[in-house]
Amino acid sequence: MKVKVGINGYGTIGKRVAYAVMRQDDMKLMGVTKTRPDFEAYRAKELGIPVYAASEEFLLRFEKADFDVVGTLGDLLEKVDVIVDATPGGMGARNKALYEKTGVKAIFQGGEKATTAEVSFVAQANYEKALGKDYVRVVSCNTTGLTRTLSAIQEYVDHVYAVMIRRAADPNDTRRGPVNAITPGVTVPSHHGPDVQTVIPINIETSAFIVPTTLMHVHSIMVDLKKPVEAKDIIDIFEDTTRVLLFEKEKGFESTAQLIEFARDLHREWNNLYEIAVWRESVNVRGNRLFYIQAVHQESDVVPENIDAIRAMFEMAEKWDSIRRTNESLGIVG
Amino acid sequence: MKVKVGINGYGTIGKRVAYAVMRQDDMKLMGVTKTRPDFEAYRAKELGIPVYAASEEFLLRFEKADFDVVGTLGDLLEKVDVIVDATPGGMGARNKALYEKTGVKAIFQGGEKATTAEVSFVAQANYEKALGKDYVRVVSCNTTGLTRTLSAIQEYVDHVYAVMIRRAADPNDTRRGPVNAITPGVTVPSHHGPDVQTVIPINIETSAFIVPTTLMHVHSIMVDLKKPVEAKDIIDIFEDTTRVLLFEKEKGFESTAQLIEFARDLHREWNNLYEIAVWRESVNVRGNRLFYIQAVHQESDVVPENIDAIRAMFEMAEKWDSIRRTNESLGIVG
Amino acid sequence: MKVKVGINGYGTIGKRVAYAVMRQDDMKLMGVTKTRPDFEAYRAKELGIPVYAASEEFLLRFEKADFDVVGTLGDLLEKVDVIVDATPGGMGARNKALYEKTGVKAIFQGGEKATTAEVSFVAQANYEKALGKDYVRVVSCNTTGLTRTLSAIQEYVDHVYAVMIRRAADPNDTRRGPVNAITPGVTVPSHHGPDVQTVIPINIETSAFIVPTTLMHVHSIMVDLKKPVEAKDIIDIFEDTTRVLLFEKEKGFESTAQLIEFARDLHREWNNLYEIAVWRESVNVRGNRLFYIQAVHQESDVVPENIDAIRAMFEMAEKWDSIRRTNESLGIVG
Amino acid sequence: MKVKVGINGYGTIGKRVAYAVMRQDDMKLMGVTKTRPDFEAYRAKELGIPVYAASEEFLLRFEKADFDVVGTLGDLLEKVDVIVDATPGGMGARNKALYEKTGVKAIFQGGEKATTAEVSFVAQANYEKALGKDYVRVVSCNTTGLTRTLSAIQEYVDHVYAVMIRRAADPNDTRRGPVNAITPGVTVPSHHGPDVQTVIPINIETSAFIVPTTLMHVHSIMVDLKKPVEAKDIIDIFEDTTRVLLFEKEKGFESTAQLIEFARDLHREWNNLYEIAVWRESVNVRGNRLFYIQAVHQESDVVPENIDAIRAMFEMAEKWDSIRRTNESLGIVG
Repeated sequence: MKVKVGINGYGTIGKRVAYAVMRQDDMKLMGVTKTRPDFEAYRAKELGIPVYAASEEFLLRFEKADFDVVGTLGDLLEKVDVIVDATPGGMGARNKALYEKTGVKAIFQGGEKATTAEVSFVAQANYEKALGKDYVRVVSCNTTGLTRTLSAIQEYVDHVYAVMIRRAADPNDTRRGPVNAITPGVTVPSHHGPDVQTVIPINIETSAFIVPTTLMHVHSIMVDLKKPVEAKDIIDIFEDTTRVLLFEKEKGFESTAQLIEFARDLHREWNNLYEIAVWRESVNVRGNRLFYIQAVHQESDVVPENIDAIRAMFEMAEKWDSIRRTNESLGIVG
Repeated sequence: MKVKVGINGYGTIGKRVAYAVMRQDDMKLMGVTKTRPDFEAYRAKELGIPVYAASEEFLLRFEKADFDVVGTLGDLLEKVDVIVDATPGGMGARNKALYEKTGVKAIFQGGEKATTAEVSFVAQANYEKALGKDYVRVVSCNTTGLTRTLSAIQEYVDHVYAVMIRRAADPNDTRRGPVNAITPGVTVPSHHGPDVQTVIPINIETSAFIVPTTLMHVHSIMVDLKKPVEAKDIIDIFEDTTRVLLFEKEKGFESTAQLIEFARDLHREWNNLYEIAVWRESVNVRGNRLFYIQAVHQESDVVPENIDAIRAMFEMAEKWDSIRRTNESLGIVG
Repeated sequence: MKVKVGINGYGTIGKRVAYAVMRQDDMKLMGVTKTRPDFEAYRAKELGIPVYAASEEFLLRFEKADFDVVGTLGDLLEKVDVIVDATPGGMGARNKALYEKTGVKAIFQGGEKATTAEVSFVAQANYEKALGKDYVRVVSCNTTGLTRTLSAIQEYVDHVYAVMIRRAADPNDTRRGPVNAITPGVTVPSHHGPDVQTVIPINIETSAFIVPTTLMHVHSIMVDLKKPVEAKDIIDIFEDTTRVLLFEKEKGFESTAQLIEFARDLHREWNNLYEIAVWRESVNVRGNRLFYIQAVHQESDVVPENIDAIRAMFEMAEKWDSIRRTNESLGIVG
Repeated sequence: MKVKVGINGYGTIGKRVAYAVMRQDDMKLMGVTKTRPDFEAYRAKELGIPVYAASEEFLLRFEKADFDVVGTLGDLLEKVDVIVDATPGGMGARNKALYEKTGVKAIFQGGEKATTAEVSFVAQANYEKALGKDYVRVVSCNTTGLTRTLSAIQEYVDHVYAVMIRRAADPNDTRRGPVNAITPGVTVPSHHGPDVQTVIPINIETSAFIVPTTLMHVHSIMVDLKKPVEAKDIIDIFEDTTRVLLFEKEKGFESTAQLIEFARDLHREWNNLYEIAVWRESVNVRGNRLFYIQAVHQESDVVPENIDAIRAMFEMAEKWDSIRRTNESLGIVG
C-alpha cells in the first residue's frame, strides 16, 4: 500500500517534491494546491496532477480563467495521509491547525520555526528522530547544506564558522533585488547556526550576505579542529558522504554557473543539483583549522529530504534503505 | 544508411547539436572535438561520444590530465560525411580550407560571414535552398528568431524595425560583462537586418543593445504593414507557425525568467526553448503598424536548424518531413 | 523677494530638487518632509534644512529616534509659496486636496496622471504654458528625455517609434528586481507615447522593457521623417539644444557606465547627468528614417525642470532666462 | 618647496590620486600618462593637467585623434621627484627599471608584489617605515581595509579569519563578469592574509569570492580574541580610528548601495568613500570571538595612502600631521 501525499503550495519547492513523490513506488501523489491559475498550474494539469485551490478565497481566480480545480485544500486533506507544506515561510505554522484538525501528518519547510514541528530533519543526520512522528520540519536549503557536510566530519569539529553568500532571488522570482549591491545580515552570528543545532549538536556560528545572483548559495566554512586530520582524509570522507559531491576548478568549475551547467549537462529536471557541491581544491587544513567551500542549490537540495521524511514518519523504511531509494529515483550521484 | 556527423567544438551550441544528432534515426554521431579536458569533455565521454582534440596543439592538455582522446580533428574528418562547425565566431571560416581538403560537407554557425557558405539557412524559410549543398550557414540565434516570425507574416510586411535587447553572456560564461550597464550598438541600423536578408528578402532595419542578463534575448518588433491585418490574424498565423510559441503574461510569463522556467517545467534538456516565444498580449495593430515582442533562447533555437540543414544537404527528406521529424525528436511543441 | 519652496518627499528626486533650489538666488528652501529618520534625514539636518514629518502618523518614528522635526507637512505648507511634491507615484494626486486647502501652488512629478495638474511641463518645450499656473506636472524622466530631443527636431518628425530599455531600480533601491531577466511591458504601444503628447503634439509610439541595471534608461529612437534631413544636421541641432549632450563611443563612451563616469569625472553632485546623452555615432539617416540612441539619467534629468517650473508658475523669468539661470547654477553644459 | 608628482596611469586610481595631489599645498602635479585619448584624457586636459603618452607606442593613437600630448612617460619622469605608478597589476614591476634609471622615487599599488618595493604601506599602521624610502607599495584596497580596522584592535587579536566578498568589476569596467554567478577563490586561505602581514604582524587567514556587483567589497571578519573585550569597546576604538566610519542599518544603511548613497549625499568627488565602513550592529563579541562586517570602496580607499606615502618618502611631515592634512584636504570624516 502506498502512502498518500498532498502538496500544499506548488511553487519552487512544491513542484519538485511533487515530481519526486511521483517517482517513488511507495508513494502516491493525490494532488497539489495553487493560489492562482498560472503556467505552473497548467503544467500540473498536463501532468495529470489533481489541482486544488489553496483556499476558498482563491476559487474566483480559477473560475475567471476557466480553470477547473478539484476542490480546495480542505478537500485535498480528506484524501491524504500526509501533506507537504511548501507554502511561503511562516504560513506553515498558520496552516498547522488545519492539518491537526483533519488528522493528517505534515511536513514543514525551513521557513518555519523549529517549534512548529516535533523534529528538524536532515535524513543522513537524524532520520531515526523522525520515525513515527506526525510533524517534521525539513530544514532550509542552507541548513541542509551545512548539516550534510558537517555531520560527516562531526568527530573532528570543535567549532565552525560559516559565512554564507546567498543568492538574492530564485531564478523565476523577478520581483526581488538587489540588482547591484551586497546586503549583509548585520546580526552576527546569524540565525543559521542555531538552526543547524536543531538537527545536530555542533558548535557553530555563521554570518550571511545577499548578493545579486539567482543560481546558488555559497558557504565559506572554517572549522576549528578537535583532533588532527589531513585535507585528503576530509576529501575521502566527503567522497563517501551521500548527497555531497566534489567538483574541481581544474575541470572548469570556476563558479556556481558551471555547477548548474553540470546539472544541465546531466539533463537533470529543472537542472536540480540535489547534492551539496564542495570544491575539491578548497579543502585545506592549516594547523588546527580546516577550510572548505561549498555551494547549495537552493531550489532542490531539500527535495530528497522531504521524501525521506515521509518514509520516516510512516516507518516505511530504515534510514539507509530510504536514502538509497530516494537517491536512485532522483539520479543522485553517490 | 545513416549520415555520419562530426561536431567541431563541443560548447554551448555543439553539445546541443550533438544531443540532437543522437536523437535522429537517420544520423550517427561520430565524434566531437574539444580544446581542453573540462567537465563537458568528461560528460561527452560518459555519454559514449568519441572525443577528439580540436587540433594537435591541444593534445598536451589532454595528456596532462590523463584524458584519452581518439585523435585530432583531422582524424574525425576522415570518418564523417558532414562536420558541424560550432567553433567561436570567425574560426569556422579559417577551418573551411581543412574541410574542403578532406572533402566533407560543413555546416557553419551564425558567427561566420554569409560568404563562408553557399546558403544562409532557416529551415522553415528556405530549406529548399540548401538541398544538395556542401556548405550551409545556420544563421545566428537572433537572425533565426527574426526570420521565423517574419517569414510567417512576410506577405504583410512593408518594412520592419526591430530593437534587440541582448543577453550579455551565456549562463556558463562568467568572464564577460557588463555587470551593471546597458551597452548600445552605436552603428544603427545594426548588421542584424542585412543578416536576415541573407535568408529572406525583406525590408528590415535593426538596432541592438547588450544588458546584464544571461537567459534570453528579447526583440521589440514594429512592422509597417503592406496591407491591412488584425492582431488576431497575426496571432492565428503565429499559432500555426512551427517553432514559434505564444505565451501569456496573464499566466505568469512576466519576463524571460518565466519562459525559461516553462522549459524547466517541461524538463527540457538544458532548459532548451527551441521555439521563439511571442508574448500574446504584445501583438497589436495600430493603423498600419504591427507591434509584437518576442524572446529568443540563444543557447538552443538554432539546434533544430542544424539538424534540418544536414537533411537538406544530403537530400534525405523533404522540407516539412524533416522539420516534423526534428520537432518530434526534440519535443518541440507545434 | 524670493519664492518660498517646500519639498514634500526628500528621496531620490526630492533631495536633488532641494539642492537645486538652494542654488537659486531667487528661491528659498523652507523645508522638506521625511517619513522616517534615515540617513537622508540626518544629512538634510546637517545641511541646515528644516525637516518635517510627512504626516502626523510618522511622528512616533522620529520621536523614537530622538530626531527633532520642525513639525509636519501641514506646518510646512503654512510657510511656503509652492510645494514640490516628490512623493511616490500616485500619492501626489492624493496630496493635492491638502495643497488646495492651504492655497499653495504645487508641482507634481511624472508618476502622477496628467490630469492632476494644469500643465505637463518640459521647460524647453512649453515653458510658457506654465506661466502663472497653480498646478504643474514635471513629466517623468523618460518623457522628459524624449521631449527634449524630439521637440528640437519636431519639424522633421512624421512619426516616432521609441523603444525604452529601462533600469530596474535606482542605485539605492535594493528591494526591487529583477536580478537576471528582461521584463517587457506587454502592452504595446506603451503609455509613454501619450505622455509625451501631454507636452508636445507629436505622432509617437513606444514600447518599454525593464533590465537588471541601476544606472540609466536607454532609448532606441526611430523617426519617420516628414522632410529630408541629414544626420549631420540633426547632430548640429542636438549640439545647439540645451540639456542635450553628444557623446562619442570612440572616446570610450561604450555604455551607460561611462556616461555616469563622465558625470563623476565632472564631480557632479550625486553624479547627476542632467543632460540627455545622445551617442553621436548612432545618429543616422537612411532613406526617410532617422535613427538615434539616447540615455537618460533617471535620478536627475527632471531636476532643472522643477526649478524652471517654479519660475514659470510665479512668472519670475522669461523662458530662456530661466533656463540659462538654472543651467548655470547646476553646471549644465550647453 | 613642493614635491613634484607624476602619475603613470590615469585610470580609476590614478585620476583620484591626481585629484588628491592637486589638493595638497605641499605637492605639485606635473602630469599624468594615458594609453589612449579617451574621455578621461580629455577631462585631464580640461582640468589643466599635462597629459603624456604612457609610452611611444601609443603616440600614434593620440596623433590620429588630434590630441596633443606633452611627451611620453620618459619626458614626464624628467620633471618629477616621485612617480605614482597606477598601471594595471604587474606592470609596475616592469616599469620599475625605468624609474630606477631616471632616479625618481616611485609608489606602486597593491597589484604589485610586495618585493617590488621596500615597504608595504598603510599610513595609520606603519607610516614611519616609509620615511625616506625610494620605493613604497600602497597595498590593495582590500588589504588596506583589513589593516585599518585590525591594526586598531591589534592588541586583542589572536587570530583573524576574514571572508571577502568582492565586487566583480569597477563601475566603469563593463568588460568583466560574471553577470550571474558567485566565483570562489578555491585556494584557501587566499593570498590576502599574507598581504596584510606585509604591513602588520598579525595572525590572519582569508578566503575570497567574486560576486556580480560593482560598488564595494564586503568583509565578514571573525577574530579569536587574545584577551577579553566587549563590543562597545571595539566600537569605541573604531570611532576613534581615522579612516574608519561606523554606519547603522537602523538609519537605512542596508547594503553597500546606501553606503555609496551616503558618499553621494556628501557630494564626494566620484562618490569616494575613503573611509572603511563598519556596520555598527555587526560588531559583536561572543565568548572569545569578535565579529564585525565592513565594506571597502575599492575605487578610493587607497587614495589618501598614496598622499601620505609621498610625504613619508620625502620626510615632509610626521605621521599624524600628514594623515590630518590628507584627511582635511579630502573631507575625510574623523
